[in-house]
Amino acid sequence: MAAFARMVKGQVRNYSAPLDMAIPASKQKYIPSSGSYPKGFLVSGTHVGVKASNTKFPDLALISSETPCSAAAVFTTNKFQAAPVQVSKKTLESRQGQGIRSVVINSGCANAVTGKGGLEDAVNMGKKVDECNGLSEPSTIVMSTGVIGQRLPISKILNKIPTAHENLASTHDAWLTTARAICTTDTFPKLLSRTFTLPSLAGMTKGAGMIHPNMATLLGVLCTDAPIDPSALQSLLKHAVSRSFNSISVDGDTSTNDTDILTSFAQSLSQLVVRDGEGATKFVTVRVQNSPDYESARLIASTIARSPLVKTALYGRDANWGRILCAIGYTQGVVPGTVVPERTSVSFKPVDGSPVLKLLVNGEPEQVDEERASVILQEEDLEIVVDLGGGEKGEEGLGGEEAVYWFCDFSHEYVTINGDYRT
Amino acid sequence: MAAFARMVKGQVRNYSAPLDMAIPASKQKYIPSSGSYPKGFLVSGTHVGVKASNTKFPDLALISSETPCSAAAVFTTNKFQAAPVQVSKKTLESRQGQGIRSVVINSGCANAVTGKGGLEDAVNMGKKVDECNGLSEPSTIVMSTGVIGQRLPISKILNKIPTAHENLASTHDAWLTTARAICTTDTFPKLLSRTFTLPSLAGMTKGAGMIHPNMATLLGVLCTDAPIDPSALQSLLKHAVSRSFNSISVDGDTSTNDTDILTSFAQSLSQLVVRDGEGATKFVTVRVQNSPDYESARLIASTIARSPLVKTALYGRDANWGRILCAIGYTQGVVPGTVVPERTSVSFKPVDGSPVLKLLVNGEPEQVDEERASVILQEEDLEIVVDLGGGEKGEEGLGGEEAVYWFCDFSHEYVTINGDYRT
Repeated sequence: MAAFARMVKGQVRNYSAPLDMAIPASKQKYIPSSGSYPKGFLVSGTHVGVKASNTKFPDLALISSETPCSAAAVFTTNKFQAAPVQVSKKTLESRQGQGIRSVVINSGCANAVTGKGGLEDAVNMGKKVDECNGLSEPSTIVMSTGVIGQRLPISKILNKIPTAHENLASTHDAWLTTARAICTTDTFPKLLSRTFTLPSLAGMTKGAGMIHPNMATLLGVLCTDAPIDPSALQSLLKHAVSRSFNSISVDGDTSTNDTDILTSFAQSLSQLVVRDGEGATKFVTVRVQNSPDYESARLIASTIARSPLVKTALYGRDANWGRILCAIGYTQGVVPGTVVPERTSVSFKPVDGSPVLKLLVNGEPEQVDEERASVILQEEDLEIVVDLGGGEKGEEGLGGEEAVYWFCDFSHEYVTINGDYRT
Repeated sequence: MAAFARMVKGQVRNYSAPLDMAIPASKQKYIPSSGSYPKGFLVSGTHVGVKASNTKFPDLALISSETPCSAAAVFTTNKFQAAPVQVSKKTLESRQGQGIRSVVINSGCANAVTGKGGLEDAVNMGKKVDECNGLSEPSTIVMSTGVIGQRLPISKILNKIPTAHENLASTHDAWLTTARAICTTDTFPKLLSRTFTLPSLAGMTKGAGMIHPNMATLLGVLCTDAPIDPSALQSLLKHAVSRSFNSISVDGDTSTNDTDILTSFAQSLSQLVVRDGEGATKFVTVRVQNSPDYESARLIASTIARSPLVKTALYGRDANWGRILCAIGYTQGVVPGTVVPERTSVSFKPVDGSPVLKLLVNGEPEQVDEERASVILQEEDLEIVVDLGGGEKGEEGLGGEEAVYWFCDFSHEYVTINGDYRT
């Protein structure tokens, strides 16, 4: 029980954003103190009180463009699609990705599995924003995040949309407040901006729960003043999201420059989600190298990243490479011949640039320096390198494919947050 | 933080079996006080001290038949197969499933990823048992369970095998001690016996970690005095295991009587593993009904059973059916048309026989009586019923397929156990 007490100690965090907005000291470094935002966008974060317990913190975000925009979106693949997802999809389709002026987002309630009434609520949120802009055609993307299965307090929201519209501004503070307004169990607002030779790019995201794509607990908004055709925008976004948000995974393949900029930006933004993973104490990169194909490497990386045994071992700061190996060994769907025990190596790569710590070399366990392992595992950041030792047998093991995944550990606090989220 | 404190309180358990064999009061009911065991089998549980910290509790199990047996086995599909798995496979192959006399099992060390030395250790364990029986041909199945990547203290084990052989007995106490000797993080020995019109059947199992099949943390031994041909035995075992241990899942299809007996026995035995799930506070049955095919129902049941969000909600006694729905919606690989939101219903079936609590009916949320939900969720046992509302569209929704899965919740203690298992 000593170990239990040790692990529980220091795990206190303010996970219920609307009740306490104090940002943990360890997360302050991820919050920008200034930014350079795309021209022509105005944003606001406003208090509604979607959750009755939230008496003062912003929970309604409005992002507005001064002129009509090209817009693209990727949505959850879950068969139970929330009302705002259905409504926004329809809006984008009917407008063919053009003429979009606003994104309106509430936190505190997901408006999911809410039947026909929920669909009407989502439509009305968009309509109200369009009214404020003097528009009659649907020009607003609607998003909601929070608890499932409860109706929105729609009157409260509709009443506050004009205020949100009046609050619109282009300052750094406005962007930060807006990023805060979309948070749920997040401990800090996730906001990034970058200026390139020509256009600017800004984005915000929320998500601290399950980081796997199918759970669809992520919301993200990217804004740019670069003039892009709607069809190009959709394919750019798809590419970037598949290598960032869509499972917080990234491969090492090359692509066009334009795509690279967006992909790299989306990766940085999506990593913030892992940094704020529910109850997370670690930020872990897993790199699977020398695979015969990218997809097998990605499957192995994703299996390691999702293993509760690996995640709890990392939380316990235990160099338990056996569990990593176990996850490699049970990964489903890899190309035959990808995983050969005698060719598999596993090591920890410390973030301070000191030499890697070899745990397994060609299937044989190393005599691990447990003291050094313990020092490495004290750090928040860690990279796990899995070397599959080549492509197909006989290929000399060189030039194989690589996949990278980012994930966090599994803590007591994760259980606390999710065992008591709804109440 | 009050909720956190509440949940942590009362979560103390003696999970480290070798250090404290005290069995929690709540688990006493799963331990038989007598049994009727198959004729001709002798068993023993002996202290070796595979883990140096274990100074007195049995950690070497020997199961011996007085005459040569037909034997069959199913092994992990993990690509990293432990030395005893490789050795036992070879033994069964070379003996063609006949002439097997013993099973020897140590706990405390899995002899996995231990290279050539580990293979020799496993061979030597079997040889030593055969020597005690005066046999020169390999006639012993070898198993090991515990930490991965460490060599066995093989001299200690070989020295104690003659003692284990001398200890062999057919009493209930001997069976119980033997079942205890194969435990690791288990809190109670898992032993079952049944007598039918003709033969007897006895079995023991261990496993309290991941209950999903690919993790292969389960060990199980079934003994019967029924005369069965080796080839029939292998297919009987495969059928029974796929519907019990192999993911602790079971379908509702019918089969031959012989198979039913073994399957039903294996189900009862495998349910004990869920009862002793690491950190478990709940025993949950999920029944997915009216699916167009069995496999889709099984995939959905398995996805719900593995969802950390569902498992933590159950731990927190939260009737969060949104998470169940979410898991249904993101299940991969189901036949198209299986999941139709407007046709999906979810309910809780209390174990006391009182009426079901409807949570979602044909895609529309019910006004849930939260007080009743809370009462139902106080119980250790719960059944979740997911009704997919029919086969393919137009089939009237009747006569669909059904799959059942058993699983446990995800608690703070699970994190404690697995964050601090190796040390």
